[in-house]
Amino acid sequence: MSRFFSAKFDALTPYTPGEQPKDRKFIKLNTNESPFPPCGAVIEAVKGEAEKLQLYSDPESRALTEALAKRYDVKYENVLCTNGSDEILNFAFMAFSDENNPIVFPDITYGFYPVFCQINNIPYETIPLLEDFTIDYKMYCGIGKNIVIANPNAPTGILMPIKEIEEIVKSNPNNIVIIDEAYIDFSGNISDSALPKDSAVPLTKKYNNLIVTQTFSKSRSLAGARLGFGIACEELINDLNTIKYSTNPYNVNRMTSAAGLAAIENDDYYMNNCKTIIENREWTRRKLEEEGFTVLPSNSNFLFAKIGYIKGIEVYNELRKEGILVRHFETERLKSYNRITIGSKAEMEALIKAIQKIKAKD
Amino acid sequence: MSRFFSAKFDALTPYTPGEQPKDRKFIKLNTNESPFPPCGAVIEAVKGEAEKLQLYSDPESRALTEALAKRYDVKYENVLCTNGSDEILNFAFMAFSDENNPIVFPDITYGFYPVFCQINNIPYETIPLLEDFTIDYKMYCGIGKNIVIANPNAPTGILMPIKEIEEIVKSNPNNIVIIDEAYIDFSGNISDSALPKDSAVPLTKKYNNLIVTQTFSKSRSLAGARLGFGIACEELINDLNTIKYSTNPYNVNRMTSAAGLAAIENDDYYMNNCKTIIENREWTRRKLEEEGFTVLPSNSNFLFAKIGYIKGIEVYNELRKEGILVRHFETERLKSYNRITIGSKAEMEALIKAIQKIKAKD
Repeated sequence: MSRFFSAKFDALTPYTPGEQPKDRKFIKLNTNESPFPPCGAVIEAVKGEAEKLQLYSDPESRALTEALAKRYDVKYENVLCTNGSDEILNFAFMAFSDENNPIVFPDITYGFYPVFCQINNIPYETIPLLEDFTIDYKMYCGIGKNIVIANPNAPTGILMPIKEIEEIVKSNPNNIVIIDEAYIDFSGNISDSALPKDSAVPLTKKYNNLIVTQTFSKSRSLAGARLGFGIACEELINDLNTIKYSTNPYNVNRMTSAAGLAAIENDDYYMNNCKTIIENREWTRRKLEEEGFTVLPSNSNFLFAKIGYIKGIEVYNELRKEGILVRHFETERLKSYNRITIGSKAEMEALIKAIQKIKAKD
Repeated sequence: MSRFFSAKFDALTPYTPGEQPKDRKFIKLNTNESPFPPCGAVIEAVKGEAEKLQLYSDPESRALTEALAKRYDVKYENVLCTNGSDEILNFAFMAFSDENNPIVFPDITYGFYPVFCQINNIPYETIPLLEDFTIDYKMYCGIGKNIVIANPNAPTGILMPIKEIEEIVKSNPNNIVIIDEAYIDFSGNISDSALPKDSAVPLTKKYNNLIVTQTFSKSRSLAGARLGFGIACEELINDLNTIKYSTNPYNVNRMTSAAGLAAIENDDYYMNNCKTIIENREWTRRKLEEEGFTVLPSNSNFLFAKIGYIKGIEVYNELRKEGILVRHFETERLKSYNRITIGSKAEMEALIKAIQKIKAKD
């Protein structure tokens, strides 16, 4: 830390992203990326923008925003696109919480929430997950503080039913509730109506204190393009736009905007990929259980799993030796587990084979 | 503003970006974009990334950062890439200024500086430009406050000699000085040594309180890709990284990173474009003066010009009718002027023709 660094950041501990090995010889099951490449239309759309890069992007990302509004059955004024969903989350923390308006979230969840609090000087409280790693929604009802909940939660993968979400939102009418739906497309109940049944997006029409955030990084194979968005009532989106136009008006670049639009226009491809990932997940879960693992009931594109008699970090290290990267967290309640991204069937087969080898050695 | 919006933003007035008309029938001389498209290698590099977008970008943008370090004759540890130069500026304001550490800048300069102060709760003071729109560097020497200076300045285009910059940096050893060099590549003294002679980049090796920011949006034809960077001593870059990893670790996406790298690898193309723009600028300046305009001595890719007997807003409106967009600012000292981006020779000829027509009507 230099002698010039603002004293207000004395206690700031930045977020640590998952490893991104440069050589790409690993099977990467550590950052919840999709095993599927973007569809052809996305690739074409990006190419089409490359020749126009001397011109600024549309600060409103108008075409993309319109397509998202249509896809999620809301109005243009209810959508804001950002440079990844980390940006919309940071905007939402900045806009609605401050030193007098604390924020509450589970003790086990996305590791960035406490960092957003620290950087924005927001006091925060955590509520422990129950013994089975579920969230007790009653502990959030009528709490009278801003709330952020990842649904499904990370790194557990556990889904909270929409009725419980609604109780939380309804019982805190004077506070903002942020539902971070990064993984909702893997929640296993994709219907023809196109929205997972536990998504809180439809509730944004009913409640003016609800913000739903999503990302193109997982279900839409655009982690490397950086695109997220938020859906909320028009007034909240206006406030979030005030933050955006006060920090980075051109936050979404031309290529990403075009890629996102093409992805929305080819939704079937991505939703089919989600179905395949769900199938691979359930196959992997069964196989892991056959190998003696305890696996939390996941509604996401990853599994959180432990095997009683081998330490979590050892499983991590041994898999690494076998050329497979998973994500390990060294905190007390998490350290016997590893978070395993669901990749292709072949990758999952390699994972199970590696685990059998590790067990045989043990 | 919703009833949930944090009271700390009560006085916040967001930045207003220049018009981005959707139909593109205008000759756009209003946002200082380059008239030259990216070089072929940039377009190819973007295409190469499109198929890998399901994978996260490298949070360090390693290859690009290495290339920038080499290009600017500094070390890897001295460079940080961001989502446009607005982001590196915001990071620098956040990291080193706060309610106890105000920041000083000219009264006429990039309009985003006061917004960055407001959003980060930083008190700021402005020092008036002299009558001829130059900055009196002595007014900043030994001021004992953080300082930001755009060099060349906007919207005047006027350059401050490097000796004066050094005096400011040297005489404020306990404060941060940010030099925003968005337009430095047009400063008209590009030599074979590849760095404009008035760039403060070399001074970052000598002074640990100096941050130089630059952008790929102007001289490198990548406004639509969003890429900026900062150069400073390692300690300051570490602090800026702390901010980055506490807000948006994957701030630069794969496509932009690849585009930036290819642009640096094809530097001659861009530096030749700068020479052409400088020639076009000088041609346009002479023509405008022949038409009776007063034109400030610009070292950037725009001219700031007025004609005594027609109001600035009228020139703006009449040019708009002729299909030419320029940028107008309605504040007291600026309102008789317009800021005119230097485009291609044909665009500049069209501008002069339109002005002759407007004068004939008047």
